[in-house]
Amino acid sequence: MERRAARISVKRIARKGGVVMPGERVVPEEIPVAFSYGGTAHAVMMATPEDIEDFAIGFSLTEGIIQDAGQVCAIEIVDEPQGIDVQVTLTDDVADALRARRRSMAGPVGCGLCGIESIDQAVRPVPDVSSADLKLTHGDIVRAVSLLNDAQPLHRETRAVHGAGFYIPGRGLLVVREDVGRHNALDKLCGAVIGTGTTGSKGAVAVTSRLSVEMVQKAAILGSSVLIAISAPTALAIRTAEQAGMTLVALVRGDDFEIFTHPHRILPESIADVA
Amino acid sequence: MERRAARISVKRIARKGGVVMPGERVVPEEIPVAFSYGGTAHAVMMATPEDIEDFAIGFSLTEGIIQDAGQVCAIEIVDEPQGIDVQVTLTDDVADALRARRRSMAGPVGCGLCGIESIDQAVRPVPDVSSADLKLTHGDIVRAVSLLNDAQPLHRETRAVHGAGFYIPGRGLLVVREDVGRHNALDKLCGAVIGTGTTGSKGAVAVTSRLSVEMVQKAAILGSSVLIAISAPTALAIRTAEQAGMTLVALVRGDDFEIFTHPHRILPESIADVA
Repeated sequence: MERRAARISVKRIARKGGVVMPGERVVPEEIPVAFSYGGTAHAVMMATPEDIEDFAIGFSLTEGIIQDAGQVCAIEIVDEPQGIDVQVTLTDDVADALRARRRSMAGPVGCGLCGIESIDQAVRPVPDVSSADLKLTHGDIVRAVSLLNDAQPLHRETRAVHGAGFYIPGRGLLVVREDVGRHNALDKLCGAVIGTGTTGSKGAVAVTSRLSVEMVQKAAILGSSVLIAISAPTALAIRTAEQAGMTLVALVRGDDFEIFTHPHRILPESIADVA
Repeated sequence: MERRAARISVKRIARKGGVVMPGERVVPEEIPVAFSYGGTAHAVMMATPEDIEDFAIGFSLTEGIIQDAGQVCAIEIVDEPQGIDVQVTLTDDVADALRARRRSMAGPVGCGLCGIESIDQAVRPVPDVSSADLKLTHGDIVRAVSLLNDAQPLHRETRAVHGAGFYIPGRGLLVVREDVGRHNALDKLCGAVIGTGTTGSKGAVAVTSRLSVEMVQKAAILGSSVLIAISAPTALAIRTAEQAGMTLVALVRGDDFEIFTHPHRILPESIADVA
């Protein structure tokens, strides 16, 4: 299959320093990515066409369709004129469970949050991660974000995509994924992490975006007990992390950051060793 | 009805300049907002509980349910324990059309983009705005973004929400709306604009976020032919604006900006009069 480009150079007119001139800029691609399970359409996301297998596995995980990567038997990626069709084949028992779930959801088409129609569905229970014994020093937090900033090739070219990384203390960033959508970037990361056989509780998730509740939900489903973000959290993200036993660290800028929930996992070790 | 707060002060531990101390920060609220039409649940969005009536009208417009604000007879806002339930009553003919549309969409629950199940639905045709005769000078672009930056009380307190404004040359910003979600901020703006009886073709839409294809779709449905963004566009947003005859201006930083499509609406007048 011919892969679609994740970035494209486009013509544009720039005004810079009072001078107007034509030129080119590299922008990220965004196309519909449709997931089907056992031949039945399930969801379409607008996403960057890169790391689609990770996206399929991560989306299946964070949507509660699978619990581990071994429950996906095959992923077929088909280029359509207007987007990408991703055909996921699940193990028999998991496919049966999904069919039963879809039957129970049948009815007028819902929308907004992956077919969610009710307020209660939108605030679904989040896995409890309070038993995870992960500890990070202040230096780890600064290092995780610094490494993430340096490990985003698509963002370096376009300045227009989000990144998500999985940081293991003492080892650094295991993997980084990028996408025009921050939820997609995190889904791709979740897929990449479980694809390596790594347990999510072993490390922290670091993201370049703001922290909405869905980012907390996805990190908790991965099993990670520390979520680090460059930008700010919402009130609901904080409440949800509080309930789930997850440590939220946000607004990481240089050596500065803020801890919003469960600070016991963050050790005030000197930051000097980072430099 | 007791209105929910759009911002909340939360406790947090800050590390700043090497000093660690407890304190408080104001963060934006994010809660499920469920829209029902004629008593039937339609969609749930995670949004900031502010300007909900504008949100209801704007969402109804950009989802193609209504064409003008007069087709909404009543909006009842009900505070639920976990979110806000918004009951929209449409005029009879519009309500009938929505019921017919929902029947034709019935089946297994879709998801992702407001109940969208197929790639073709995700790239729905966008209204052509090429006939709009709006013209903006370079000074207008700089002024629109500068005014928008100054007209965001929630963002000033939280540094964590998006803003969308409607700019009319010679008049300034007609209205600004904010939300933790950029799509919601633009939907709220669309509702506020048509609620004033203003025709969308009279002005430009300015947003603080990046430009994904959905932002182009919503601005075009409002009827605006110029979309201005502080951040970068995606390739699909550019292609869609090109086809719709919409002028895309992005990466506005101080006096600098870039024009990606249909530059004929942007007049290279001196920027000096802005200061």
